[in-house]
Amino acid sequence: MHSVTQDNDNLQMLMVKIGRRARAAARVLGNASTEQKNQALLAAADVLRQRASDILAANALDRADAEIKGVKGSFLDRLKLDAARLDAIAKAVADIAALNDPVGRVLAEWTQPNGLRFERVATPLGVIGVIFESRPNVTADAAALCLKSGNAALLRSGSESFRTSSLIADAMRAGLRAAGLPEDAIQLVPTRERDAVGLMLSGLEGAIDVIVPRGGKSLVARVQNEARVPVFAHLEGICHVYIHAKADLAMAVSIVLNAKLRRTGVCGSAETLLIDKAVAKTHLQPLLDALIDKGCAIRGDATVQAADPRVTLATEEDWRTEYLDAILAVKIVDGLDAAIDHIETYGSHHTEAIITEDNGAAEAFLTRVDSAIVLHNASTQFADGGEFGFGAEIGIATGRMHARGPVGVDQLTSFKYRVHGSGQTRP
Amino acid sequence: MHSVTQDNDNLQMLMVKIGRRARAAARVLGNASTEQKNQALLAAADVLRQRASDILAANALDRADAEIKGVKGSFLDRLKLDAARLDAIAKAVADIAALNDPVGRVLAEWTQPNGLRFERVATPLGVIGVIFESRPNVTADAAALCLKSGNAALLRSGSESFRTSSLIADAMRAGLRAAGLPEDAIQLVPTRERDAVGLMLSGLEGAIDVIVPRGGKSLVARVQNEARVPVFAHLEGICHVYIHAKADLAMAVSIVLNAKLRRTGVCGSAETLLIDKAVAKTHLQPLLDALIDKGCAIRGDATVQAADPRVTLATEEDWRTEYLDAILAVKIVDGLDAAIDHIETYGSHHTEAIITEDNGAAEAFLTRVDSAIVLHNASTQFADGGEFGFGAEIGIATGRMHARGPVGVDQLTSFKYRVHGSGQTRP
Repeated sequence: MHSVTQDNDNLQMLMVKIGRRARAAARVLGNASTEQKNQALLAAADVLRQRASDILAANALDRADAEIKGVKGSFLDRLKLDAARLDAIAKAVADIAALNDPVGRVLAEWTQPNGLRFERVATPLGVIGVIFESRPNVTADAAALCLKSGNAALLRSGSESFRTSSLIADAMRAGLRAAGLPEDAIQLVPTRERDAVGLMLSGLEGAIDVIVPRGGKSLVARVQNEARVPVFAHLEGICHVYIHAKADLAMAVSIVLNAKLRRTGVCGSAETLLIDKAVAKTHLQPLLDALIDKGCAIRGDATVQAADPRVTLATEEDWRTEYLDAILAVKIVDGLDAAIDHIETYGSHHTEAIITEDNGAAEAFLTRVDSAIVLHNASTQFADGGEFGFGAEIGIATGRMHARGPVGVDQLTSFKYRVHGSGQTRP
Repeated sequence: MHSVTQDNDNLQMLMVKIGRRARAAARVLGNASTEQKNQALLAAADVLRQRASDILAANALDRADAEIKGVKGSFLDRLKLDAARLDAIAKAVADIAALNDPVGRVLAEWTQPNGLRFERVATPLGVIGVIFESRPNVTADAAALCLKSGNAALLRSGSESFRTSSLIADAMRAGLRAAGLPEDAIQLVPTRERDAVGLMLSGLEGAIDVIVPRGGKSLVARVQNEARVPVFAHLEGICHVYIHAKADLAMAVSIVLNAKLRRTGVCGSAETLLIDKAVAKTHLQPLLDALIDKGCAIRGDATVQAADPRVTLATEEDWRTEYLDAILAVKIVDGLDAAIDHIETYGSHHTEAIITEDNGAAEAFLTRVDSAIVLHNASTQFADGGEFGFGAEIGIATGRMHARGPVGVDQLTSFKYRVHGSGQTRP
């Protein structure tokens, strides 16, 4: 019988071994041709379709276990695969083959007076650790994005989707094999052991270059607090829409309804509406009516509450809350500066929009608001790699280092300088 | 009398306060115009010249103290300012005003089918912590580069140069004031207390975005191990020159002499010479003769030692050593793959060069060697922001995240997405 210490030692040895295999595979994958990588992605998509019945059977077992454990409705729905969802996963993998290869892009090129020609060329980041919860599609999405960008993927599935994720990861590895690429470029951590997450956050002795958490706020918070390697993530999306003094009312109503209610559970959904004092008289009531008609609850400041008895008085906490639900905090602000101050005080640097016909005010807002995404006359729900034209995203980052906003294949790369000479020495 | 705990609490309070002031100043500086920032730099250069006698007097005191403490020759020389050196410092600050403003650059721009226009625009990183040792010029250089790139600088001087650095920092702050910018955008940590470094490495409660260490290997190692925020640095530069089978001998000799001996103490100096077996007979002896003639000691593998009695036999440790001196490790390798394997095994991912007339071999080397800078037919001593045309650098990074190679003003920026709409909502 093993002691707890022995088990921990074994887990650590296992994880370090996995990390080393990932690093070795990354070196090969980093130099693979575009054709080879695309061949692997298309083969993986085929294998996902061919093994559909096995994957769906595994998913049924995962869900049965989860139900026994008393897992709730929305979590169960995220866990669930059916034929249509699995086909969409396979299609998404094949679609990533159609993206431009981000590796080898010449990002800049110039020649110095001494004749040295410099190129700044995109290279893979190395090994990307992805830690996710119940959604089994992340196994395929994240692995495919890493593969396309020449990075090895170390995937840690939530324990509830372990069987499903294992079969999906196997299919992705079969794709790598079919293209003559090292299958260790995609590895699913082969244990439900919770300590494996902590080991990944330590970086596995330098084997992991960056961690991407995909899941709820508590997972992201843990990863951001404990990781000893860089993290691409956003903790929350407390997104604002600011109705400026020169906002068109019809546009304001249309954008606010979309920003709040199109989908309330996504990170780009608006959580706070700021209405300029100058247009409170004309714009506030129509906005409240439209929102409340659609079933949105309103938490307003004193002025907003006084205007409409259906409004609950907002507390200080409301300005800091990501509801992810049909609830909106509404505040009257005195001008552009006050709006920006509110956003900088309470926001999460994710996505903010200004609605105005005044281009000067829009310019000031876009320049001065320190968020990853700032929009003029458009819905905050455009905060999405697909909507940006990136094809697919591994997540959205609010940090300022390396990646910011939707993280597509281009942002999963680093770069190096290639210098072409003809015998130059330095004086 | 204060207890040790009280003193630590006081230091922490002081540092957190400094961090908050830096963050507030960064918000203002981040939106300052190019003209204002340049005005501040030119004014600072003027003040540095006007206060030359005070600064040189402070420097004399610093040096006298250091000599009493028994500080050594090269350290004392780095600490030393004279009229010419101080003038060069002032000129370097003024030169940074002449660089293009990296903030606000449109890095990419595109329009989606729905009419949304996207811009990816460079923004400052925020607050940059610079930890340095004896060289007082870093106070001005680093502060000026941060100012130009819209970042607040938190500078931690080595205790030996504290008086000099304080007066230089004062001059830089006077420049900010003259331009109507917040002087807290440049702050020198006002204490020699060693624990201040550890507090900076903790990030000062989120006030520091990135740390740049400027100093010897032990400082960099400490910063890399302890920092809870990203670090731009290289631990060492174990740079290789590989003489390929198709290398021109005269070019090989000229580049190797320059790469090793132009200056032996810089991070881009070559530490290991790899000679292809195919040209060992013709190229080895002329290379050894040229190097030894110039006073370079050689540590060679068995073949190299057998070729010349002046060669010492290299140990395993030699391949991992950054000599920073007139010593070169020399090894015979069997082809391009063996050269790349050696570099990947023993190198530090800093700078490597291949000498060859075979463009296919050069291309393979530049693609496959995973270093920040890879050169074909040029000296490794070109590893320098000035030589790259960056104007000035805050350091050279070997990490893969965000910054890599020489870190100039462009790489002291992050970015955000500005999205221009006309009422778009997401379907």
